[in-house]
Amino acid sequence: MGYAMNAWYMAAWASEVGSGLFARRFLDIPIVLFRREDGHVVALEDRCPHRFAPLHRGRLAGGVIECAYHGLRFDVAGACVHNPAGDAIPPQAKVRAFPVHERHHIVWIWMGDADLADPASIPDLSCIPNEPGECANIGNYLHVRANYLLEIDNLMDLSHVNYLHHGTLGNDSMRGHKVKVHEEDGAIHADLWMPATTAPIYSPLFGQPCDQWTNMIWMAPSCMRLDYGAVPPGEPPVQLPEDIAVHILTPETARTTHYFYGTCGVFGPDQREFAEMIRTAQTAAFVNEDNPMIEAVDERMDGADLWSLRPAILSSDVASVRVRREIEKMIRREKAPASEEKAAAEAVVV
Amino acid sequence: MGYAMNAWYMAAWASEVGSGLFARRFLDIPIVLFRREDGHVVALEDRCPHRFAPLHRGRLAGGVIECAYHGLRFDVAGACVHNPAGDAIPPQAKVRAFPVHERHHIVWIWMGDADLADPASIPDLSCIPNEPGECANIGNYLHVRANYLLEIDNLMDLSHVNYLHHGTLGNDSMRGHKVKVHEEDGAIHADLWMPATTAPIYSPLFGQPCDQWTNMIWMAPSCMRLDYGAVPPGEPPVQLPEDIAVHILTPETARTTHYFYGTCGVFGPDQREFAEMIRTAQTAAFVNEDNPMIEAVDERMDGADLWSLRPAILSSDVASVRVRREIEKMIRREKAPASEEKAAAEAVVV
Amino acid sequence: MGYAMNAWYMAAWASEVGSGLFARRFLDIPIVLFRREDGHVVALEDRCPHRFAPLHRGRLAGGVIECAYHGLRFDVAGACVHNPAGDAIPPQAKVRAFPVHERHHIVWIWMGDADLADPASIPDLSCIPNEPGECANIGNYLHVRANYLLEIDNLMDLSHVNYLHHGTLGNDSMRGHKVKVHEEDGAIHADLWMPATTAPIYSPLFGQPCDQWTNMIWMAPSCMRLDYGAVPPGEPPVQLPEDIAVHILTPETARTTHYFYGTCGVFGPDQREFAEMIRTAQTAAFVNEDNPMIEAVDERMDGADLWSLRPAILSSDVASVRVRREIEKMIRREKAPASEEKAAAEAVVV
Repeated sequence: MGYAMNAWYMAAWASEVGSGLFARRFLDIPIVLFRREDGHVVALEDRCPHRFAPLHRGRLAGGVIECAYHGLRFDVAGACVHNPAGDAIPPQAKVRAFPVHERHHIVWIWMGDADLADPASIPDLSCIPNEPGECANIGNYLHVRANYLLEIDNLMDLSHVNYLHHGTLGNDSMRGHKVKVHEEDGAIHADLWMPATTAPIYSPLFGQPCDQWTNMIWMAPSCMRLDYGAVPPGEPPVQLPEDIAVHILTPETARTTHYFYGTCGVFGPDQREFAEMIRTAQTAAFVNEDNPMIEAVDERMDGADLWSLRPAILSSDVASVRVRREIEKMIRREKAPASEEKAAAEAVVV
Repeated sequence: MGYAMNAWYMAAWASEVGSGLFARRFLDIPIVLFRREDGHVVALEDRCPHRFAPLHRGRLAGGVIECAYHGLRFDVAGACVHNPAGDAIPPQAKVRAFPVHERHHIVWIWMGDADLADPASIPDLSCIPNEPGECANIGNYLHVRANYLLEIDNLMDLSHVNYLHHGTLGNDSMRGHKVKVHEEDGAIHADLWMPATTAPIYSPLFGQPCDQWTNMIWMAPSCMRLDYGAVPPGEPPVQLPEDIAVHILTPETARTTHYFYGTCGVFGPDQREFAEMIRTAQTAAFVNEDNPMIEAVDERMDGADLWSLRPAILSSDVASVRVRREIEKMIRREKAPASEEKAAAEAVVV
Repeated sequence: MGYAMNAWYMAAWASEVGSGLFARRFLDIPIVLFRREDGHVVALEDRCPHRFAPLHRGRLAGGVIECAYHGLRFDVAGACVHNPAGDAIPPQAKVRAFPVHERHHIVWIWMGDADLADPASIPDLSCIPNEPGECANIGNYLHVRANYLLEIDNLMDLSHVNYLHHGTLGNDSMRGHKVKVHEEDGAIHADLWMPATTAPIYSPLFGQPCDQWTNMIWMAPSCMRLDYGAVPPGEPPVQLPEDIAVHILTPETARTTHYFYGTCGVFGPDQREFAEMIRTAQTAAFVNEDNPMIEAVDERMDGADLWSLRPAILSSDVASVRVRREIEKMIRREKAPASEEKAAAEAVVV
């Protein structure tokens, strides 16, 4: 069904993009990323317009990429600034440049109409501290062989924690609680309040009775923030900033996804072991439990649209369905701006 | 061209299905098999109707599968018996259950219209002894990357033995004998009588002159029984029950096949070595000679229908062509029951 | 867009084809090659017309192939000469035989209309010496995962040498020289004259000032001859026969190519080390520099026609574009002989 193009997607962690040429595919389009000498990140289509060589195989000097095949050079705007054959530069000799913006240790990219690229619409991930400390648990990345919407489904319905992650992230006491969903400023909140339960392994109260919560917030197009907490039963549920995690997805292709994740605690050198423990536990759950399941679901669906398969929808699906509806609305709006209202009215209602 | 759906296919050897969840794909449909507490085998579609997780990744307790992803539970009839979200069970929350029947140490499955599933039409493999002994040579399985009809072609034309298996299962003296084909009660018999020939390696008369025979019987949709024997020249050709082999094929996908095989001798502990020798020789011939050839043919045909390639048909093809015609007739009958006669009349005649 | 069928393609080096059965795919058609007892090379379709087994798995005796599956036999003309079932030979029992011709240590094959196969149109590779010596640098082969036209583009625009092979085959001084293109007897010449430059590593003048040249000649459909030379500045540019290389491409499939190459020097036993050095340097450049780039281009183009991607064309592309136009003309001529003039007139002009 395509992608929402006019939106900010996470391209990379800021730390991934240095002075070299960094290649990654987003929304089926190959992109090369690099930093200008002033530190600003540049994103160009990773395909020379001459003979279609990947530009990331080239050389970067003075903010100019030289194609490794025949030597055409392109500036940070994608304009050809050197024709090695010595003639005038032909009009086709240019590559598309994509708006990028660096914020919250993240490089954001805009794959759609550049005129609409307003940094104000970058998802609010100010939960990531400006100075996360030298042992921070951000910068994590997984490559997933599944459509990105299946990852969003996974994250927006945390009831799966108590089955798929039973014994690791979840336990029996956490089952059966009702999610409350609401929208706020375009973000969709899925709040799960689990009073009088047993704290799971990642909580300092592990094994003890507690009131706990997982509040997941989706921000268009595919960013999620998870506010977690556990307090002794009856105490006020104060949200600690360090108990916030981020899960950010960017489609690579229709059936592969970039998955970026991390937690928002500030960790100094003395907390290296603790930060590493969290990273390891989180990654183990994703790699051993979530990813095999999500990839198996993608294989079972075999590229079919979710609705065409007529899924049984449960009340625990409310948030993920609303997110899918929002994304479908974004895509429809881009495809036929004028007839948006009509298309929305005709959309299949769950 | 599709499959005959209203037929009993071999799903597994009885010994393959135990108290755990056993996944296998038949006719392009993923299935999970397991035994109820009373020992009966159950076959369900291996895809949760909620978010399409493979059910075989789940947990089985008290004859109920719990999906590993979000905890929906299904009974042996495929009905959802637990909605973890705590609400009423939505009507889509059910999985298809498939008729299964256990007979002759084999689990049979019916992939078509359940109302038509009559165990009386299970292929007669009573040649497999009820008590095959603890060293029996049944239970063998190979996965083949080829359409199942190519395996049937292979088995219904045993003239290939004297070329493809020359020096192993066949020899020069066995060439050029005419197959006699007849139909009996819907089964197609391909009888090859080879008088005054030299016995091949798997016969107790190996290297000696003999009268020998290989009589292959096809039973719909894809079971074959091979009656073999060799006697000193001129002696009556008595069929020994232990010289019978079974070859059973089930399509996995259009271009992959489950191949089950074995022999019908009863082997006690003292015959372990002999039974193992037969198994090894048989498997070696299939793995080293038949499978590479059949897979190479499948690759050369590249998914094309046999007839569309206009094969040169020899008299040795009579049996395999008749079997293909029978299977085509079954498929036509299912697709357009009323116009069967007409369709048959229009079918390409070889 | 298909292939030019009525043309001589290189099937193999003469040394590759012996008394055994040699399988290779050309223009999407599987072929089996072998030598008759009189030494002549035979090319047959590598697919038995009976049950589509690859014939190269069979046995060759007395110039007759016996199919390994059911024993049909075919002579060098592709006629079935033995029906193992003992009946008349059915009319479909024949395989296509392809004209082949051995010349210049090369086996040439004609994949199109056999009536048009005139050895006079075999590309002139008389530059390959009749007696290249026992250490000759011919007989080299690479398998490339890219459309063959991308290899031709690569070879007909040697400006890439100074970028892709910078530091190995090329250097800065060799950049920016204008190629001169002309046609002669149907061959397209791309002459690059580089006066007052520095000799590259493969020249005896390595590192010294020189006048040098690379003159590439394309002969239909996909043979190239490279005349190279370097002389001290101002001296007459005498072409040494040993400084000639051949690059010959044959499509295997739409996206894979057989790449044959070599040089034309005569090397005796005392020059084994030198010949081996040239072979190693050449192969290293192709394997480490050209092939990864050409395969990456093929992947970026993903099967699209070059023109549909609207490439930026530089003056250095003149020769490769002319060659592509010639090949397109050959294909059009074969598809619609009568309307050739019209089609040519309508062709997209670069």
